Amino acid sequence: MIIVLKPDASEAQIKHIVTKVKALGLKPMISRGIERTLIGVIGEEEILRSQPLEVFPGVEKVMPVLSPYKLVSREFKPADTVVRVGDGVRVGGRKIVVMAGPCAVENYELLLSIAKSVKKAGATVLRGGAFKPRTSPYSFQGLGEEGLKFLAEARKKTGLPVITELMDVRDLELFEKHADIIQIGARNMQNFDLLKEVGRSKKPVLLKRGMASTVKDWLLSAEYILQNGNFNVILCERGIRTFETETRFTQDLSVIPVVKQKTHLPVVVDPSHAAGTWGLVPSMAKAAVAAGADGLLMEIHPKPEEALCDGQQSMLPEKFAALMKDLRKVAKAVGREI
Amino acid sequence: MIIVLKPDASEAQIKHIVTKVKALGLKPMISRGIERTLIGVIGEEEILRSQPLEVFPGVEKVMPVLSPYKLVSREFKPADTVVRVGDGVRVGGRKIVVMAGPCAVENYELLLSIAKSVKKAGATVLRGGAFKPRTSPYSFQGLGEEGLKFLAEARKKTGLPVITELMDVRDLELFEKHADIIQIGARNMQNFDLLKEVGRSKKPVLLKRGMASTVKDWLLSAEYILQNGNFNVILCERGIRTFETETRFTQDLSVIPVVKQKTHLPVVVDPSHAAGTWGLVPSMAKAAVAAGADGLLMEIHPKPEEALCDGQQSMLPEKFAALMKDLRKVAKAVGREI
Amino acid sequence: MIIVLKPDASEAQIKHIVTKVKALGLKPMISRGIERTLIGVIGEEEILRSQPLEVFPGVEKVMPVLSPYKLVSREFKPADTVVRVGDGVRVGGRKIVVMAGPCAVENYELLLSIAKSVKKAGATVLRGGAFKPRTSPYSFQGLGEEGLKFLAEARKKTGLPVITELMDVRDLELFEKHADIIQIGARNMQNFDLLKEVGRSKKPVLLKRGMASTVKDWLLSAEYILQNGNFNVILCERGIRTFETETRFTQDLSVIPVVKQKTHLPVVVDPSHAAGTWGLVPSMAKAAVAAGADGLLMEIHPKPEEALCDGQQSMLPEKFAALMKDLRKVAKAVGREI
Amino acid sequence: MIIVLKPDASEAQIKHIVTKVKALGLKPMISRGIERTLIGVIGEEEILRSQPLEVFPGVEKVMPVLSPYKLVSREFKPADTVVRVGDGVRVGGRKIVVMAGPCAVENYELLLSIAKSVKKAGATVLRGGAFKPRTSPYSFQGLGEEGLKFLAEARKKTGLPVITELMDVRDLELFEKHADIIQIGARNMQNFDLLKEVGRSKKPVLLKRGMASTVKDWLLSAEYILQNGNFNVILCERGIRTFETETRFTQDLSVIPVVKQKTHLPVVVDPSHAAGTWGLVPSMAKAAVAAGADGLLMEIHPKPEEALCDGQQSMLPEKFAALMKDLRKVAKAVGREI
Repeated sequence: MIIVLKPDASEAQIKHIVTKVKALGLKPMISRGIERTLIGVIGEEEILRSQPLEVFPGVEKVMPVLSPYKLVSREFKPADTVVRVGDGVRVGGRKIVVMAGPCAVENYELLLSIAKSVKKAGATVLRGGAFKPRTSPYSFQGLGEEGLKFLAEARKKTGLPVITELMDVRDLELFEKHADIIQIGARNMQNFDLLKEVGRSKKPVLLKRGMASTVKDWLLSAEYILQNGNFNVILCERGIRTFETETRFTQDLSVIPVVKQKTHLPVVVDPSHAAGTWGLVPSMAKAAVAAGADGLLMEIHPKPEEALCDGQQSMLPEKFAALMKDLRKVAKAVGREI
Repeated sequence: MIIVLKPDASEAQIKHIVTKVKALGLKPMISRGIERTLIGVIGEEEILRSQPLEVFPGVEKVMPVLSPYKLVSREFKPADTVVRVGDGVRVGGRKIVVMAGPCAVENYELLLSIAKSVKKAGATVLRGGAFKPRTSPYSFQGLGEEGLKFLAEARKKTGLPVITELMDVRDLELFEKHADIIQIGARNMQNFDLLKEVGRSKKPVLLKRGMASTVKDWLLSAEYILQNGNFNVILCERGIRTFETETRFTQDLSVIPVVKQKTHLPVVVDPSHAAGTWGLVPSMAKAAVAAGADGLLMEIHPKPEEALCDGQQSMLPEKFAALMKDLRKVAKAVGREI
Repeated sequence: MIIVLKPDASEAQIKHIVTKVKALGLKPMISRGIERTLIGVIGEEEILRSQPLEVFPGVEKVMPVLSPYKLVSREFKPADTVVRVGDGVRVGGRKIVVMAGPCAVENYELLLSIAKSVKKAGATVLRGGAFKPRTSPYSFQGLGEEGLKFLAEARKKTGLPVITELMDVRDLELFEKHADIIQIGARNMQNFDLLKEVGRSKKPVLLKRGMASTVKDWLLSAEYILQNGNFNVILCERGIRTFETETRFTQDLSVIPVVKQKTHLPVVVDPSHAAGTWGLVPSMAKAAVAAGADGLLMEIHPKPEEALCDGQQSMLPEKFAALMKDLRKVAKAVGREI
Repeated sequence: MIIVLKPDASEAQIKHIVTKVKALGLKPMISRGIERTLIGVIGEEEILRSQPLEVFPGVEKVMPVLSPYKLVSREFKPADTVVRVGDGVRVGGRKIVVMAGPCAVENYELLLSIAKSVKKAGATVLRGGAFKPRTSPYSFQGLGEEGLKFLAEARKKTGLPVITELMDVRDLELFEKHADIIQIGARNMQNFDLLKEVGRSKKPVLLKRGMASTVKDWLLSAEYILQNGNFNVILCERGIRTFETETRFTQDLSVIPVVKQKTHLPVVVDPSHAAGTWGLVPSMAKAAVAAGADGLLMEIHPKPEEALCDGQQSMLPEKFAALMKDLRKVAKAVGREI
């Protein structure tokens, strides 16, 4: 932690800060420059972080040196984390994991038919929402528990592990019973009580980035989960909110190499929600793989015209199958496989 | 709803859309222009909204004409809503309501002392967090239930109704017992299960704008609360996330006149969280009142150096008292009072 | 400047950096912490700023301590700058300056009529564009030199000094002849050749903030003007680009107190371009004055239906006159006058 | 153009609008819905675009149906534009064009050495700045005309055509003499006088996207160039400004498929300026190619520690050569070549 003093900071003010720092068991080092005096603090920065040093008289600004997260950082654990999901699926290894399925579970027959077609095309995880976070209260809110049961049934039939979104802490038990990966959506990325609860679970958690979350915020939300005991966390980039309106959100693929440097956790990309239109999905899916993503999360629907949710961003199964062929080539080009 | 067709849309495609619209009980009107054909749909736009018309063959884009919210809109209820809080406090009338207090409840004595000083300065609601949504799991998370009890005790002593943030649906009962206004924080603005639950409550709800929420998103979140039966909703602008880093968030005061046109609900402003530094709070508080806000939410602490939360954005009680004098003048200048 | 080293930085890497810093005539100070080693550099930070220290082996990040601008900073000149415009108008003093007029100069009669009405209402500077920066090449591009002459003529008739936008370095001479304040628009805030040229002029310059410019970028653009010899610079906030689409731009009033701390230059606000709709202008104009702005820049048109530019954000003269009355009250409430 | 009326619009107001529309030679069509009346306008939307219909009494909002640009649109010219540069280089065909070189031209020997190494690695265009747009007036501003001559000399020696940035209209003649592609930088994307001048030139123009420019703004700026007669325009995505600070800008790769749908112009990507750190460039360059970019613009320097500009985002020549090998594989995977 570096404390930058105002040009006119008095000796008494400097002494006051030094006394405070020492009282916390830390060691201050004073550097007197021509234009500013700095106080560097050696020792556990964590102790200082919760001190509002900015309000001490004479302080101009405070600059933290270390990242505020620990367990998620590469310094804490240099080797890549590989999250084990169900039988044989590993997220974070050489093999890129494709998770595909409908936006929402609508009925069992449709779900099973989609599950079969995405499996045939090469997906290894089935996605599908049972509880849906909808911006409007007048939109379809999902089938709820019944949807979870349909997912579990589809897994039984196809062997595909399932990922589905948890919104309410009170439903965790149900999810532990029926889901293989618990998804925390962008809108709940800073629902800290929910993060703590899934942190106490053993299930793998896929944590979507909030639409206005910096990488630091995102990793701190992941830290909540790890700190509560669950290290099986997969990060998911799904677009951020910017001024551009041609796409629903702006897909930020540069976070892939950024996050790979900072954390050992695997990172996957959801191009469907970022784009908001199925026609843009193939480009962005290929780009995500080329950029180094560990997996993809995509929405598929055989009759988008009748989809109860996000029809405009769902691909037809045959287009998805064609995309999978292209993705295999791109994966190979960057030394991975699908 | 206006459906804009592609330049090369075929008659068969147009017929397919027209059939679909009619099947929904709506009336399509076709306008054939020089460069595009449009299909206007007369009737309840709501019915069409959940249809993914964008994926119909031949469709270029779909433009909704009406707002997606109903109960919160001025068209539904032209007169301003005045939310009654505790004994005599009314949010949304001529009198501007100032809600002030510490970021977090730290202990009873401190809370009571702050409560007394903000009351003396003219605040009519006491704010204070018992459950704190903190970006980092290593930050102070609040006193929990004990904090709620301290707030209730402080109300008893000072007569000030209290506002405090609810994060977890499981705590609602506790809040109904101890709080006068339930605050939904920016990070939970789209925690739809939480919105539904406070919608079933009778307590006034203060709904903060999410840091990346458009006015439309914000009003739809309010709609969740009204649609579940609770019309006592106060909107609160607290800054949005932009590229500017000099302030913690960018206070968007232009939403005050925007929201006043669109909805009958009162709107208050939190300058403390937007600014992130107490030194900017007086300017922004005065600006908010001049812009037409119905109230202010501000953080006060007698010893910011020792505050367990947000010390750098908390004002000293004496500065707050001086600000209140200025605010009275500004309120008078715009035909209001404090 | 603080150089933060990677956890595994070697002694050879540290020595390499230290040698480089010393070779520049600066004094490095090494602080060895538990988790990181830091190198603080004492001396003129400016010398180091142009060195890409980030690429030196072993460096994790570089944190500048000082602001990159000098002449615009309060440290360089603590007292407020008051810019003298024409006869008797002073921008930056106790009196708030209102600059009003049409978006574009359309013809002489209309201009003169608007000039008279804004003068009567209390404006002391006439605005009007002769060369217009239009997003589309198919929009009205302004009358050019003829517009400048009309402005000069209107000044002669009314005594109001005029402000008008310069876009092309080749037109500077014309502007020096006809204008009293040269406006640099948001789209040219980083047109550095233009900034250098107006820096060589003696005319007051109003520098609008770019729509994606941080305060730092904005002040550095002002620095270009001062560094070339022209200290008569007025800053103008006109809204930044964010995700919100209800307003044309998001007016960032919090920059007023921020900029007042950092620089001695006066700052005015343009609510017309930020809002994009005349109905929002009164709220934002009052808020700007309450927040501490030194002036306002507003668009007025007697027949907005027929305006050749920005009709939807132009106020009617009678609404402007009513607003001026309200603004006087707000100004008085914050210890200023109009 | 769709004119949406307020719920309480009167017949007189409707008649007033209809009269206006007809007077412009256009044909209005009235649709009376349950909640709103709409007026659709058939005919050349362009005529209406400059009318501020929003201010007509009774109008709630106006929704344009068509894009405001013409010459750049796919509707105007369905086939991809291929821009011919120097001898044999074609931008916009099957072959992906790599433009590489130093941020700034520093001296002739260094430039030539970089030119040779990028040519050897497979680049077909040499980049290098002679006039540099620097945020701070204290940063290196470029060698100016001398730099242009060095570029021309390096072209003579290596056969590589050169791209370099034009900032000042007064320098155009010099650029026409020495450059093969004239670059318009992000900060000048809306410097309309500059756009008009390069529009009158015959030289290919690379138009960077402004850091806060929507796709619509960007294409309208390109329209300025085409409308003045120059159809040899290459678009370049170089990152947009968002709240994320881990990267210098946020690379928006989703614009590649978006822009490809809307326009016939080729689009290239600059990952160096978007990332701001050379370590992120390989990931983003590969992603850009996978997403469908027609080319890349990258910064290379053999001694980044001594670079006078943007050292931290410049790749070493050997790393660039290795990246080119990877890029060839990715290009092949998506049916292109480098």
